[in-house]
Amino acid sequence: MKTFGIAILGCGTVGSGVAKILLDMPSALSDRSARPIELRKIVDLSPTKSSEKYNIPLDLYCGGGKDLTPEEASRFISEVISDETIDLVVETIGGTGDYLLSVILDALKAKKHVVTANKAMLAERGSVIFETAKENGVTLGYEASVCGAIPIIKAIRESFTGDQVQEISGIMNGTSNYILSKMELEGIDFKPALKMAQKAGYAEADPTLDISGGDAAHKLAILIRLAFGKEIEYKDLMKEGIQNIDKEDIEIANEMGCSIKLIGFAKKIDGSIFASVKPMMVRHGNLLSQVNGATNCVELINRYSGRHYFIGAGAGSLETASSIVADIVFTARYGVVVESSSGPQQLELVDADHFEFPYNITFSTEDRPGVTGLVTTAIGGQKINIDTVSHNRRNKKDAVFSVVTMPCTMHQIRDAIGSIKRGSPGLLTEEPKAIPILQ
Amino acid sequence: MKTFGIAILGCGTVGSGVAKILLDMPSALSDRSARPIELRKIVDLSPTKSSEKYNIPLDLYCGGGKDLTPEEASRFISEVISDETIDLVVETIGGTGDYLLSVILDALKAKKHVVTANKAMLAERGSVIFETAKENGVTLGYEASVCGAIPIIKAIRESFTGDQVQEISGIMNGTSNYILSKMELEGIDFKPALKMAQKAGYAEADPTLDISGGDAAHKLAILIRLAFGKEIEYKDLMKEGIQNIDKEDIEIANEMGCSIKLIGFAKKIDGSIFASVKPMMVRHGNLLSQVNGATNCVELINRYSGRHYFIGAGAGSLETASSIVADIVFTARYGVVVESSSGPQQLELVDADHFEFPYNITFSTEDRPGVTGLVTTAIGGQKINIDTVSHNRRNKKDAVFSVVTMPCTMHQIRDAIGSIKRGSPGLLTEEPKAIPILQ
Repeated sequence: MKTFGIAILGCGTVGSGVAKILLDMPSALSDRSARPIELRKIVDLSPTKSSEKYNIPLDLYCGGGKDLTPEEASRFISEVISDETIDLVVETIGGTGDYLLSVILDALKAKKHVVTANKAMLAERGSVIFETAKENGVTLGYEASVCGAIPIIKAIRESFTGDQVQEISGIMNGTSNYILSKMELEGIDFKPALKMAQKAGYAEADPTLDISGGDAAHKLAILIRLAFGKEIEYKDLMKEGIQNIDKEDIEIANEMGCSIKLIGFAKKIDGSIFASVKPMMVRHGNLLSQVNGATNCVELINRYSGRHYFIGAGAGSLETASSIVADIVFTARYGVVVESSSGPQQLELVDADHFEFPYNITFSTEDRPGVTGLVTTAIGGQKINIDTVSHNRRNKKDAVFSVVTMPCTMHQIRDAIGSIKRGSPGLLTEEPKAIPILQ
Repeated sequence: MKTFGIAILGCGTVGSGVAKILLDMPSALSDRSARPIELRKIVDLSPTKSSEKYNIPLDLYCGGGKDLTPEEASRFISEVISDETIDLVVETIGGTGDYLLSVILDALKAKKHVVTANKAMLAERGSVIFETAKENGVTLGYEASVCGAIPIIKAIRESFTGDQVQEISGIMNGTSNYILSKMELEGIDFKPALKMAQKAGYAEADPTLDISGGDAAHKLAILIRLAFGKEIEYKDLMKEGIQNIDKEDIEIANEMGCSIKLIGFAKKIDGSIFASVKPMMVRHGNLLSQVNGATNCVELINRYSGRHYFIGAGAGSLETASSIVADIVFTARYGVVVESSSGPQQLELVDADHFEFPYNITFSTEDRPGVTGLVTTAIGGQKINIDTVSHNRRNKKDAVFSVVTMPCTMHQIRDAIGSIKRGSPGLLTEEPKAIPILQ
C-alpha cells in the first residue's frame, strides 16, 4: 500500500516528541497501520534545539536545518500543504490566531488529514475546523488535545459506541491539581503551592490560563462536543479557578471526608446540559479524590456500562506525542473517522442557578448563641434540605461552621444568604463560601 | 450502504443485554457505524426468559420463540452461519467445548465477523481462532472478554499504537476483589467474606474459577497476546488464588501501608516475559490499592506515555453487552481490524524464580531473643537486601514479624527459609508466607 507521508508544523515540546516516536519505531508503526508510514518534512523556526533534544536529522527540516524567518516558514508551510506526498499534517504550533486557523483550514481543503494538540483552537474556533474536515472527507485527529496521554477521545468515539455518555467529571488541568495536592498534603496555602509548581516546571511564569480554569474549560468544551454533540460557545462556559481556595477550605473539606479538586463537569438531562469548571469537594469514596499531583483523570458515567475512570499523564513531550502518533496510525489504518458519536443535539446550556448539587457552605459569623438556628432557618426557608451542620472553630474570634445541603441551586443559596443578611445585619463576618460536592 | 446484519448465539445474561442495546438505539448505532445495523436472528434454547427480561420480540428467535432441543439449536446455528444477510455473529454461549469451537471457526470460515465475551475459549484455544479470523479476512472482536465494560482491548489496539506497553497489572476478577475488600474494610476472614459475595450475587455457588485466579489468568493471557504479541499456554501461566489469604495477612499489609489485591501481572524485559496471577501487597500510593468491591482496574506502564489506569465494571449484563456492541459498531464502520499491536514476539516466559519483586515475608517463630538476628542473617546470606523489619506481636504465644525485602527472586527466598530450617530446627512455628509487593 502507498506510503503515508507526514509533515510536522512546529517542532517544540510536543512536535519534537512526535518526530522522535515516528523515527524510533517506523516498522512497528507501519505494521500497526498496515502500510508504510514516513515522516517527510518538518517546518520549525529554530530547528537546532529540537533536533538536538531527540537527535532528529536536520535534513528533515524545511530549509535544511537553518533558522527560518516567519516569511520563510510561512512559504514552507504552503509548500507542505500542496505537497502530494504528504497525507497528514501534524499541527503543533499552538495558539488561536487567524494565520494558524487558515493554515489548518487550507490543509484540510487540500485533503490532508490534520492531527493537533491545540485545545484552545478547537474549543474557541473548532466549529469551522470540524466542518471543513467533514466537507473535505478527511480526518481531524485531536486525541492529544484533551488530557495529553489519556485516550479519552477514542474511548468516547470508538469504545462507548454501544452506550451513551451521561455525565463527565474530570481533573483536566495538571497544574491546578498539583497545587491543590500540595496544599492538601503539605498543609500550605495557595501562593507557596503555586511557587512550588512553578519551580517544579508544572506551572508557567504566567499561570493564569491553568489556575483560572480556562485550560480545563477548553478540554471540557471539546469533550462536550464529542460526547453530547453540543457545540458550546467557550465564552459561555462557567469557569472558576482555584485562586480563591485557601488552606482552611481544604481542611474543612477533609473534615467532611472530601478533597478539593478543580473539576470539569458536564451532565446531560433530557433536553438540557449543565457544564462548569469549578473547584468541587470530591467525596473520598470517589476515585477522583485520590488522584494527586499533575496526573489527570476523567470519570464518565454511561447509560449501560456505568462508571469509568481514565487516569494518566495530562501533559509532557512524549506523553502527548504518543497520542498524536496514535491518531496518525488510526488515520493511516482506517481512513476517515466518524466524528459525532451521537449526532448534533439541540441542548440548552443551563447554569448553576438551574442545576442542583449538594453544597458545602462555610459561614463565618459572630460567636454567640442562636447563630446556628438563624442560619439553618434561613436555609430551610429557601426549601433547601440540610444534610449536616458541623462546627469547625479555629484560632480566631468568629465562629466558623459548615452546612452541607441536599441538592439545591445556587439561586436558592444566594437567596438564603440574602435573607440572613437582611434579617441579621452584621451577623456574617465574611461572605459565605459555597462549594459544590461531587459524590 | 448495505445493512449490517447481526445474529446472537446464546441469549443469556450477556447475549440478552446485547439484544436490548441493539433494539434500544438502532439509529444512534447506525449513525456511528455510518451504515444501517440490524439484529436479525437470535438462537437460544429457552427464549422466554431473555425475551421477558428485556422485552425482546419473540419473532427474532429462530423457531419463533419456542424452546429448542440442542439438535434444533444446532441446526439453526448452521442456518445462521450460511445466511448471507448475516455479517456478524455474536457468540455468547460460553464454555470451551469442541462443538462451540467448531461453531466459531465455521462462522469465521463463512466470512462472518465474530464478537465474543468468551475469555476461557480465547485464553485456552485462542490461537486457532485468531489465525482463522486472519486467514478469512474477518474480525474477531473480544473487548468484552477482558474486564467487561473497561475498553482495555481498544486502548491497547487503537490508542497506544504510538507507544509500547511495558507492564500490565490489574484487578481482573471482581469476585476476588469483592471478597478481599470485605475482608479489609470489615476485618473479617475469607470464608464469611466469600459467603457475603455469594449472597450479593458476586460469586457463583462454585466459586473455584474466580477465587483460584483462573478467571483472572484467562484475561491476563488475552492481554499478553495483544500487548506483547506472545501466545501464552494458559496452563503454563502461574496462578495463585486468594483462598490462603487470611485476616492477619491483610492486617500486616495495612501496617505496611499496603492492601492485598489479586493482581494479574505481566512485564516484558528484553527477550523475556514474566507473568503471574497472585495476591500481592499493593502500596497505598498505587491507585490499584484504592479500587474496592467488584470493580476492575487495569494499570499499564508504557514506554512513552507512562502510567495509565482504566477502571470500570468488570461484569454485568448491560455493562459487558455495551463492549460487545462497541465491537459490532467498530467492525461495521471500519471493517477488518489490525490484530497485533506489535507483531509476533519470540519471548521466553520466566517464572518467579527468575524475576525479582520486593517481598513481604511473614515469620511465626518461637518467642525468644535472638530470633530476628537468626532470620535476617539467613536472608542476608542469600544476598537479599532487607528494607524493613517489623514486629507484629498478636494474641498468641509465637512471635510474628514481617521482613520487607528489596527486589529478589522466590528462589532466593526459598533458599533463605531452607537455611533457617536447617540451622535452627523448630524455630519456625509456621511455614513463612512470602507475598510480592507492587509499588
